[in-house]
Amino acid sequence: MSTRAPQIRDLPIGLRANGTRTESDSLGEIQVPADHYWGAQTQRSLIHFSIGEDRMPKAVYHAYGYVKKAAAIVNGRAGRLPEWLADLICHVCDEIVRGDLDSEFPLYVWQTGSGTQSNMNVNEVISNRAIQLLGGRLGSKDPVHPNDHVNMGQSSNDTFVTAMHIAATMAMERQVLPALVRLRDATADRSREWANTVKIGRTHLEDATPLTVGQEWSGYAAQLDDASDHLKQTMTGLYRLAIGGTAVGTGLNAPPGFGDEVAAQLADLTGLPFTSAPNKFAAQASCDPLVRVSAALRALAVSLFKFANDMRWLGSGPRTGLHELILPSNEPGSSIMPGKVNPTQAEAMLMVAVQVVGNDSAVSMAGAEGNFELNAFRPVIIDNVLRSARLLADMMDHFRTYLIEGAQLNSPKLKSNVERSIMMVTALSPVIGYDRAARIAHRALAENLTLKDAALNCGVPEPLYDKVVNPEHLTRPGVATSGNGAQRRPRRLLGRRRR
Amino acid sequence: MSTRAPQIRDLPIGLRANGTRTESDSLGEIQVPADHYWGAQTQRSLIHFSIGEDRMPKAVYHAYGYVKKAAAIVNGRAGRLPEWLADLICHVCDEIVRGDLDSEFPLYVWQTGSGTQSNMNVNEVISNRAIQLLGGRLGSKDPVHPNDHVNMGQSSNDTFVTAMHIAATMAMERQVLPALVRLRDATADRSREWANTVKIGRTHLEDATPLTVGQEWSGYAAQLDDASDHLKQTMTGLYRLAIGGTAVGTGLNAPPGFGDEVAAQLADLTGLPFTSAPNKFAAQASCDPLVRVSAALRALAVSLFKFANDMRWLGSGPRTGLHELILPSNEPGSSIMPGKVNPTQAEAMLMVAVQVVGNDSAVSMAGAEGNFELNAFRPVIIDNVLRSARLLADMMDHFRTYLIEGAQLNSPKLKSNVERSIMMVTALSPVIGYDRAARIAHRALAENLTLKDAALNCGVPEPLYDKVVNPEHLTRPGVATSGNGAQRRPRRLLGRRRR
Amino acid sequence: MSTRAPQIRDLPIGLRANGTRTESDSLGEIQVPADHYWGAQTQRSLIHFSIGEDRMPKAVYHAYGYVKKAAAIVNGRAGRLPEWLADLICHVCDEIVRGDLDSEFPLYVWQTGSGTQSNMNVNEVISNRAIQLLGGRLGSKDPVHPNDHVNMGQSSNDTFVTAMHIAATMAMERQVLPALVRLRDATADRSREWANTVKIGRTHLEDATPLTVGQEWSGYAAQLDDASDHLKQTMTGLYRLAIGGTAVGTGLNAPPGFGDEVAAQLADLTGLPFTSAPNKFAAQASCDPLVRVSAALRALAVSLFKFANDMRWLGSGPRTGLHELILPSNEPGSSIMPGKVNPTQAEAMLMVAVQVVGNDSAVSMAGAEGNFELNAFRPVIIDNVLRSARLLADMMDHFRTYLIEGAQLNSPKLKSNVERSIMMVTALSPVIGYDRAARIAHRALAENLTLKDAALNCGVPEPLYDKVVNPEHLTRPGVATSGNGAQRRPRRLLGRRRR
Amino acid sequence: MSTRAPQIRDLPIGLRANGTRTESDSLGEIQVPADHYWGAQTQRSLIHFSIGEDRMPKAVYHAYGYVKKAAAIVNGRAGRLPEWLADLICHVCDEIVRGDLDSEFPLYVWQTGSGTQSNMNVNEVISNRAIQLLGGRLGSKDPVHPNDHVNMGQSSNDTFVTAMHIAATMAMERQVLPALVRLRDATADRSREWANTVKIGRTHLEDATPLTVGQEWSGYAAQLDDASDHLKQTMTGLYRLAIGGTAVGTGLNAPPGFGDEVAAQLADLTGLPFTSAPNKFAAQASCDPLVRVSAALRALAVSLFKFANDMRWLGSGPRTGLHELILPSNEPGSSIMPGKVNPTQAEAMLMVAVQVVGNDSAVSMAGAEGNFELNAFRPVIIDNVLRSARLLADMMDHFRTYLIEGAQLNSPKLKSNVERSIMMVTALSPVIGYDRAARIAHRALAENLTLKDAALNCGVPEPLYDKVVNPEHLTRPGVATSGNGAQRRPRRLLGRRRR
Repeated sequence: MSTRAPQIRDLPIGLRANGTRTESDSLGEIQVPADHYWGAQTQRSLIHFSIGEDRMPKAVYHAYGYVKKAAAIVNGRAGRLPEWLADLICHVCDEIVRGDLDSEFPLYVWQTGSGTQSNMNVNEVISNRAIQLLGGRLGSKDPVHPNDHVNMGQSSNDTFVTAMHIAATMAMERQVLPALVRLRDATADRSREWANTVKIGRTHLEDATPLTVGQEWSGYAAQLDDASDHLKQTMTGLYRLAIGGTAVGTGLNAPPGFGDEVAAQLADLTGLPFTSAPNKFAAQASCDPLVRVSAALRALAVSLFKFANDMRWLGSGPRTGLHELILPSNEPGSSIMPGKVNPTQAEAMLMVAVQVVGNDSAVSMAGAEGNFELNAFRPVIIDNVLRSARLLADMMDHFRTYLIEGAQLNSPKLKSNVERSIMMVTALSPVIGYDRAARIAHRALAENLTLKDAALNCGVPEPLYDKVVNPEHLTRPGVATSGNGAQRRPRRLLGRRRR
Repeated sequence: MSTRAPQIRDLPIGLRANGTRTESDSLGEIQVPADHYWGAQTQRSLIHFSIGEDRMPKAVYHAYGYVKKAAAIVNGRAGRLPEWLADLICHVCDEIVRGDLDSEFPLYVWQTGSGTQSNMNVNEVISNRAIQLLGGRLGSKDPVHPNDHVNMGQSSNDTFVTAMHIAATMAMERQVLPALVRLRDATADRSREWANTVKIGRTHLEDATPLTVGQEWSGYAAQLDDASDHLKQTMTGLYRLAIGGTAVGTGLNAPPGFGDEVAAQLADLTGLPFTSAPNKFAAQASCDPLVRVSAALRALAVSLFKFANDMRWLGSGPRTGLHELILPSNEPGSSIMPGKVNPTQAEAMLMVAVQVVGNDSAVSMAGAEGNFELNAFRPVIIDNVLRSARLLADMMDHFRTYLIEGAQLNSPKLKSNVERSIMMVTALSPVIGYDRAARIAHRALAENLTLKDAALNCGVPEPLYDKVVNPEHLTRPGVATSGNGAQRRPRRLLGRRRR
Repeated sequence: MSTRAPQIRDLPIGLRANGTRTESDSLGEIQVPADHYWGAQTQRSLIHFSIGEDRMPKAVYHAYGYVKKAAAIVNGRAGRLPEWLADLICHVCDEIVRGDLDSEFPLYVWQTGSGTQSNMNVNEVISNRAIQLLGGRLGSKDPVHPNDHVNMGQSSNDTFVTAMHIAATMAMERQVLPALVRLRDATADRSREWANTVKIGRTHLEDATPLTVGQEWSGYAAQLDDASDHLKQTMTGLYRLAIGGTAVGTGLNAPPGFGDEVAAQLADLTGLPFTSAPNKFAAQASCDPLVRVSAALRALAVSLFKFANDMRWLGSGPRTGLHELILPSNEPGSSIMPGKVNPTQAEAMLMVAVQVVGNDSAVSMAGAEGNFELNAFRPVIIDNVLRSARLLADMMDHFRTYLIEGAQLNSPKLKSNVERSIMMVTALSPVIGYDRAARIAHRALAENLTLKDAALNCGVPEPLYDKVVNPEHLTRPGVATSGNGAQRRPRRLLGRRRR
Repeated sequence: MSTRAPQIRDLPIGLRANGTRTESDSLGEIQVPADHYWGAQTQRSLIHFSIGEDRMPKAVYHAYGYVKKAAAIVNGRAGRLPEWLADLICHVCDEIVRGDLDSEFPLYVWQTGSGTQSNMNVNEVISNRAIQLLGGRLGSKDPVHPNDHVNMGQSSNDTFVTAMHIAATMAMERQVLPALVRLRDATADRSREWANTVKIGRTHLEDATPLTVGQEWSGYAAQLDDASDHLKQTMTGLYRLAIGGTAVGTGLNAPPGFGDEVAAQLADLTGLPFTSAPNKFAAQASCDPLVRVSAALRALAVSLFKFANDMRWLGSGPRTGLHELILPSNEPGSSIMPGKVNPTQAEAMLMVAVQVVGNDSAVSMAGAEGNFELNAFRPVIIDNVLRSARLLADMMDHFRTYLIEGAQLNSPKLKSNVERSIMMVTALSPVIGYDRAARIAHRALAENLTLKDAALNCGVPEPLYDKVVNPEHLTRPGVATSGNGAQRRPRRLLGRRRR
């Protein structure tokens, strides 16, 4: 190949051609649509795998843009590619990363389990777009060959899983974690706002002892904090990239140090702490790191399910439900029942959570099915992980905006519940004993008395009762007398700063 | 082998011996506990597979008792086994079926995936118990050989899955279906009892239009009816037995017609409609029929989850929950809160349902993993199916006895809900239009009015209101004027007879 | 409303307008894009639920077209709607069923759990399209009101689940079952073609006794037959429609007999055996029939997983794998390894199966979460069921076309395997006893002998060996001497006619 | 209560009594077996919840022994309990921790979702055993009351989940992690042992480029290392204990600082880094940390599934399979096929992995179902987590002992595969181009040539071929010329020391 730099034309993306163009691969020639950049292998895949409607996520191709660019830079610096060719590949990769070539990546999720067809799709598009920019003949693979140049030192087996890690990391960094922090912060705000509003707690759905609304919501915020921490922990596995292992992990056809150099380049290009996986055999034969990230997304979904479920139950009513919380009226609730308002954001969140659990189930089964030097269930894994990430991120933002931030307390209901509840008898238990306290509770229920009336009827002196059974104090035992305990407590419960 | 019948001694089950006895198989000699009947292969399995605490369910061995007996009868009739030997095997099989030899089947679930070790356990125990009854030497395999005689015409590959089908069928017939019918009937009884009690319905947890408690409960009963029908449908797959296929489905070493004859014999012995599977290759290479039965148990669990969940929510309170239903106080609910009563049967049911979903998840994954002529995930499949069956059956009986049959309506609460609800505005909608009806509902809520006051304030004439918004009539629109509609309706809803 | 029929204009679908139009609902006014038919509630949903990329499947709207049409016919015949209005609604419904209005149904899967927003989307589009055809003002709801006319006698709570059943039934009837029959028939063809080709069977992946390739493939066909039967069984639950139950199952605001009449009309319009569900409370409070259908799809996926897995293993190699089967070379297999061909159709099938298992997991969890009079997880259920149906149908067709129909046997390999295998020693077992046969096998393995050499070395007379160990005869024991047994056998195994 | 220390008798565990004894709780009196220590609430639970065969794991009670002891110490030091009473409770707790009272904890998994009944079981047994040691009357609750003294400052809602965390932590520390390290080390040993044995790799099950057996096994070891790291990460969530939150998280009836002090005491007693959870509301309302640990166990199962699956495939044959690996012959494999040996340890591992996936599925669904201040699905969660832990630990030890440590390479087969494989053509690709290399591969396959013959026929000079296509060098590209690369490489791959 000539190392004399040919001239690069300044041509917009797009092919003004009708009909088809002949492309070829090792199985022979095939016609492809003349207005697209892809080549023979992409076309074969389109024919053999037009299954359902799920296309390989664009995020995978954007990640591939980084991979091919980093490889070209490394190959160019080492002189394995002429500088102009490395630069040209980088130029097209930038177009891919920007999404400008998205329409050139039409393949389905359901294809070869290694992702080879998507890798070749990228190689072919880069080759032909580069050839166009050089004024060459599309499909000629000259002077930019999809395998020999674009795929130099690489295999689908190392690059596809590398692209999966990059795409998943970006989905976490850009979508899930920011939305999670926003929801957590909005939740913590409500917790602080309602730090002193007393309510009756519920265990087993049954009346229990009091707490403040702020305390209850601090629990939601704390679950989200933990989910965030856990997600970050599992992401460390994503930072380790298979690149450099090529076909089976040995690095055949990749020069020494290639994996390290490309990973470093990827870290540089993305600003993310990518490194070369220490064991390429594990990195290519399994998808364990993605199985773990999927499980972390599922754990987040599990926490969100509880949060959303509580929201819709607390909002239930308005006349025959719990109705402690007044949810925003975003839309009419019924086509037949006028005036009905439903907890639709909570319902959508519950459904998203259920979907994430299902997606994770697929990921886990697929993750187990590697054989020897390759896990050939990669497309279904990355599609489910990215789908879960996107759903959770979008849903958390909507749930926050259209439910959490607009919810209001139904103070009269909260107050009346406190007045009517029996379970504050618990505070009497250390004073008069569990058994006697139980008798008071049973009597209150049987005779439809307030707790105080039942207690007094059972011989508890009124001053003792009033001293011990103070709902507000019961929410901060031990600190009640110190005056400002309630104010401090939520802050401690939610100690970390906003991010 | 001699066809002269040796004398059979009348000896109780049990070996009075200490220490160990030498047994052997094709891998050589091994010591087994002298006070047990099992032989070399059982002992090897005990050494190599002492994993966890899950033992192969006894029901599998009882089913195997039928299989070995049916095979012996068929082999005896055809003269392949001398009559005395066939009779002797049958005698020991009867002991197995009765459970008298349960202690001789110690193997773990986690063993060879074909169940061969459990099959050999049965063969060895029958051989040695028969030898004992003949006064022979244990471990000699003479004159009753575990493979040549007890396993005659059989393989683990056809007999184990045959025993799985028999054990699963019996679990459905004897445990699940009767308990399901009992729960359905108890539910239908309550439905009839409460056929005329009006309540406010809930959709999205929000107040909706009225129905009767009996109507609501007719829904639970109908779900159980459908679950029962579906379970019976899927059981048809279990009736088709692999027996006769031997090692790979061709029936090698089994005489012609063996599968048909043994299946007919099994039908005769059990009273269940077993037949010989038409395609042995499918019958041995897959566990599809059990995957379907497991899914039917899961579907039942899904229905029961909804039922139990409704029960605990309807019972929630007593002061701050829905509390339309008063659940039986079976036990104190809290170690710290005196007088608390919790919906414990409902909680146990929910947990059982969750477990059944998990078990089914394992069955489904295992069912997919057959290779070529064998699914080698059989033990985990049958263990989960039988465990789910047992849990559901026991749980339905407890749920029925300790919750459904003892629950009482909280009539004042139901009545007050009807009086306070707004959603009966729906009945006005066809008369005054959806949009105007919606305005009434919004006004009632905003100004904390009763529906009637809001309607009148919005200009609805009182006579019209009273005619249209009659809660009881609203539960049986169209039949309300015919007088006894409410009485007839639940009967139609639950039309089938008790079984 | 006037019963004088206004003139219906002959206008193509489409709105030539720019900017926005004011629409309103019970929450007030809102701007919608002027070039779309949808109204206020659709627009609110678009704002509040732009989550991920999953839109409510068009098949649900097509099914809704039937529902609204059938309701209009019934309402028209009874005089509740003027004839011209009923006809006009039918006209628009026909456009919906044909897919001509698909672009007017933009809502996301993640919305209210009842599907109300999609029902209102349909109501609004029909209203405005009808108004357009009448020359009226869009958004005026006059003279065709989305609730009062299009939704007459209906609720989202009964119609959405009715549409779910119709859409799911059609997916089974039109997509899954035909593709399943095609795959089954193609498989049976190969089974017949290869009825006499002997191969060595495998159990536990280990060499076992021989069978014919045709027998092995008859097992795949039989699994597919059973899957088809089971799917049809579970579809009976789909035929029973909730229509007529309206808001909570009582049928409030629907005239007597409405459910029966609309269901009959739906049966007539679709040619499918729909009826009115006998218990509306169960039909609306649960999604049990869809949980069962989802499980049946999962069971099909489980069978297909085994089939595809066998295919890729039998095709493995070409030099270091089993390589009994030569899979079609549809595309180059590797970006780095020239000349590699991979079992890509099998891999895609395995991934689809895994996805269906995951989808079913979501359906099952969602199915359990109904509360009181409504299961509010409907969108996630129908989306997963339809997605699984589509994936399986498409995948079965591709798998059949690009793998099953083109696969070829590697006869030399099959023959050499038969010659080298040891496990035909099994045939000697009934003649010389299990223990002696085992010694022959161990010797053959240890000394790297053929089975025959080992047998002769161990004293088996050669004529006996040759008589007993005939691979072809071993594949049809008992019928081998009748000459044409092999030909008859596969036909019996696959007895049913093509459909 | 007197603070004068009564005399503690030195009595062995056991009650010599027949018939029943009267015990009581807030619901009244009940008869319990006189030879058991448990009281009224345990007895009620036994009656109401005899469901299936699953008992609450003993490990939960042993953990409870620590909890009750730590609480007694803290209460004693603060003077809330007299010293003798605190000491006496500690004494009985020591008996519990040692397992000496195991027979006194008979309750089922399926009980109240909070675990209250198991907490009361512990409280009752400690009370009565202590009373026995004091010479008092069993059932009198005097002078050691199950609620007022043993449960002092505690609730089931904080203690049960505390015991769950302790039991799960110990299962990880004592069972899973050590067995995992042992398996990892044994695997790494084999990897080092086989560092220089070249084999043909497989991707998509198809022949690929060579690697060493040691490299392949280094991948298994690396997967296990990662699983171990991940498990430890998720365990940090278990260290944070709910203790101190009491009924709803506020700490009502617990003195200030109680949670911190008891957690510190628990850390001291167990040697594990337990602390008091910073947010009790999250700690009691969710089981998120256990959902994450369950997922980590599932991830381990996923890795082990791949490992075991590879083992059985590599061992398949002996004549018609891959047979690169000779698995230990632990037991005869077939009841009908003499001399058959099966990969039984691998099969058991695969089944265990499938079960762990199923168990995790149940945990995840249960984890989502908390409501308000309590997750009432705790028993099903801890039972599944502990069951998975035990199964994995036992199974890893058996798999290691009976498969990994005894497996041997089939060197002739490995060598012959290397000689016959075509995919080393890959090494020619950078030299002669991908397209030309592909033609060589296709020709070798089509004409049944060795790669070398095909290459030479296609014009590749023999010296070039011999230089480029050297299997051993291909396994360590770039380091091949440095002489001792192969030796160094595996050490780097498995860099960490044994633990």
